[in-house]
Amino acid sequence: MGASTLHNGSLSLLTDLYQLTMAQSYFQNKKFAPATFSLFVRAYPPHRSYFVSAGLEDVLDFLEDFALDSEAIEYLRSTRIFDADFLEFLKGLRFTGEVWAIPEGRLFFKDEPVLEITAPVIEAQLVETLVINQIHLATMIASKAARCAHAADGRAVVDFSLRRTHGADAGMKAARSSYLVGFSGTSNVLAGRRYGIPVVGTMAHSFVSSFEREIDAFRAYAASFPENSTFLIDTYDTVEGARKAVVVAREMEQSGHHLRGVRIDSGNLLSLGREVRRILDDAGLSEVKILGSGGLDEYDLLALSEAKAPYDSYGIGTKMGVSSDAPWLDMAYKLVEYDNRPVLKLSPGKASWPGKKQLFRAEDRQSRMEKDIVTLRDEELRGTEPLLKKVMENGRIREPCPSLEEIRENFFREFSRLDEAVKSIERPQNYPVEFSPRLQELKAECERHVA
Amino acid sequence: MGASTLHNGSLSLLTDLYQLTMAQSYFQNKKFAPATFSLFVRAYPPHRSYFVSAGLEDVLDFLEDFALDSEAIEYLRSTRIFDADFLEFLKGLRFTGEVWAIPEGRLFFKDEPVLEITAPVIEAQLVETLVINQIHLATMIASKAARCAHAADGRAVVDFSLRRTHGADAGMKAARSSYLVGFSGTSNVLAGRRYGIPVVGTMAHSFVSSFEREIDAFRAYAASFPENSTFLIDTYDTVEGARKAVVVAREMEQSGHHLRGVRIDSGNLLSLGREVRRILDDAGLSEVKILGSGGLDEYDLLALSEAKAPYDSYGIGTKMGVSSDAPWLDMAYKLVEYDNRPVLKLSPGKASWPGKKQLFRAEDRQSRMEKDIVTLRDEELRGTEPLLKKVMENGRIREPCPSLEEIRENFFREFSRLDEAVKSIERPQNYPVEFSPRLQELKAECERHVA
Repeated sequence: MGASTLHNGSLSLLTDLYQLTMAQSYFQNKKFAPATFSLFVRAYPPHRSYFVSAGLEDVLDFLEDFALDSEAIEYLRSTRIFDADFLEFLKGLRFTGEVWAIPEGRLFFKDEPVLEITAPVIEAQLVETLVINQIHLATMIASKAARCAHAADGRAVVDFSLRRTHGADAGMKAARSSYLVGFSGTSNVLAGRRYGIPVVGTMAHSFVSSFEREIDAFRAYAASFPENSTFLIDTYDTVEGARKAVVVAREMEQSGHHLRGVRIDSGNLLSLGREVRRILDDAGLSEVKILGSGGLDEYDLLALSEAKAPYDSYGIGTKMGVSSDAPWLDMAYKLVEYDNRPVLKLSPGKASWPGKKQLFRAEDRQSRMEKDIVTLRDEELRGTEPLLKKVMENGRIREPCPSLEEIRENFFREFSRLDEAVKSIERPQNYPVEFSPRLQELKAECERHVA
Repeated sequence: MGASTLHNGSLSLLTDLYQLTMAQSYFQNKKFAPATFSLFVRAYPPHRSYFVSAGLEDVLDFLEDFALDSEAIEYLRSTRIFDADFLEFLKGLRFTGEVWAIPEGRLFFKDEPVLEITAPVIEAQLVETLVINQIHLATMIASKAARCAHAADGRAVVDFSLRRTHGADAGMKAARSSYLVGFSGTSNVLAGRRYGIPVVGTMAHSFVSSFEREIDAFRAYAASFPENSTFLIDTYDTVEGARKAVVVAREMEQSGHHLRGVRIDSGNLLSLGREVRRILDDAGLSEVKILGSGGLDEYDLLALSEAKAPYDSYGIGTKMGVSSDAPWLDMAYKLVEYDNRPVLKLSPGKASWPGKKQLFRAEDRQSRMEKDIVTLRDEELRGTEPLLKKVMENGRIREPCPSLEEIRENFFREFSRLDEAVKSIERPQNYPVEFSPRLQELKAECERHVA
């Protein structure tokens, strides 16, 4: 399964070739000074106005274990691109740097550093590709899923995305990132096992159609799961399916069991949900839940919430799992300091802020998020919270990462303090982000220097 | 790194919970009859008009190795969802079925079966999630990358997408799928090693800005790679960067070496490319290549091709690697036959064709692709090519998969036979797909039966 069977010696080769050719040139030009790279998102995709930090734990594990094994070195030798002394140097190379990062589950905004790495330039350069790859994916999905959970307005949302995420790794990260921002479970069994996320599931159309009659499928499933059955009722005709579910629910009650719910996966979810709810209620089955699914995203959820559609929960798949309306973020990992010299880039649309940074979050008297201020690392802003924490030093993780449950609680706490106008699904306002006078001055100075 | 360190025992748990709950219900209801599932794409995303089959090799490896290890069984037990006798059954479960599939690199179209699995229903059901996950990703990227290569109109295109693909697995598959349809290399070093794809790379802005002067960065890189240097010239000012590249290229010539190329990664690629070409040519450096990159997709490439922009090659990253304008396909894996009974689904917008199938491709007298005909498996259409091959039998791969180079050659051969109107980047026509009278009759019969 390709990248899904990698061990660490392989993972360290999961980089762009130019990281290695630049490394050789740094090596041959004796450039071993410390470099600081800053990871940030340059712009919001349409309708986005915040990001949720995610992916840090995997990145720290990767950095701590970074090493090229002998097969990797042999492969590099076989390309005839590299010199023998550089390959010898690579063999013993480990990541020895420090990492400052916004903890997972915390909000951040465009142009803010979410992670800064300071390490000998070769090390900081070689890890770039995988650092971006992992933080980008986890953050993008967490941010999309947060919007879905918010739009569901209190209804439970669960992750059904595994089949259409971009590969195995993405499927795992979609489950974790969505749980982190308030999804209540995932259909992904391996994610359940690995991350301790509650696993959820109903039945598929194939189960229904493997029986000659729909009602027989319901009866068979109820026999297997007498207290935990959710019938999928839209295989042929949703309203007829609901009536059959009522028949089987009553049979279940006669043996002391209860139908848990029904799922509607196609058609007009609003009108079908109402009709099915009425059928269930008229049959005295008001405790039977309705789960909605089928290509839903936050815009659909918002419309259903506003119409007070009678759903108890939603299964969210493809559009969350691939972040369909914004399947990439303009995330960059830029050199901001080399050998204690602040640097910047001027490429059109890609200008960066120089120097090692800190990020402070100010709140108002009601403890609501008021604004962020990006500063140089050594600045202090009284009465505000510094968000970048030193999480790795000398290549070692400083303290155990928080549990997924803790991260989730931190997300809930902070998200409730963010202005509703910034969280708007369709027309969000920008959250205020300022740059300290010292940082602005440094940037201007660098620009003058370049010019 | 989460899913990137999976072994096979884990991979078999990478499924939706409902596959396992349905499996228990099949088990308890003694449903062990063979089922056939058909994998197909229901609709074209905007501007798409063909798909390229990809991902089969990984799927066959997964099926051949399918097994739940003891940790997996213990995890399932801990959920308290499953009965002991079913868990015992799962322990010994292997995939014993047969697979018919369109070979990798061949074209296919909407509503056509790209893969059909026939196996005892529990086996066929349990593997659904990963089969879709892998074929969907590889096919989606191959189809997007084919459009990019086509739009580049003969210029070389290389994969630069790893940093923004959705995780590690997607990064590997993007490299493989894009090479399969004509990309000439990848920046992904691990993909180079694993798949034997040529690896390519230039330098990053960070390398340039780690030097106090841009020209020193060029000199240092040239010293390391005297015959294989491509300078990135847009860190500060592209035209100035080109002039500095000329200075260093002349210095290289004095020591008997040659600058290979320059890269432009931002700004107006058309006008900058022309200006840089002129600067190089005026300096007698007409053999120095220009590589363009920076957020390119097939629409940009088409515009550059039509304007005869003077690029020799392009680096294609994010937008190919995430299939940005169509980050998912409406791909479904539907039960079409159970226990020799053809079945279908009628859900709105999700209707399926019943029965085991074959797919035939007809060509005209000029050997151009003329039309496809979807039939029942046992039909024969003289003078046409059957596309679904039996690639697995009794759970074993029937013969070694073709090499990536063979797959690529097969793609080239077939793509050249597809009408330009169908390959149009902006307004493609649909390729004709017909359904045999027997298949149509069977569908009508099933519909009557359900009604």
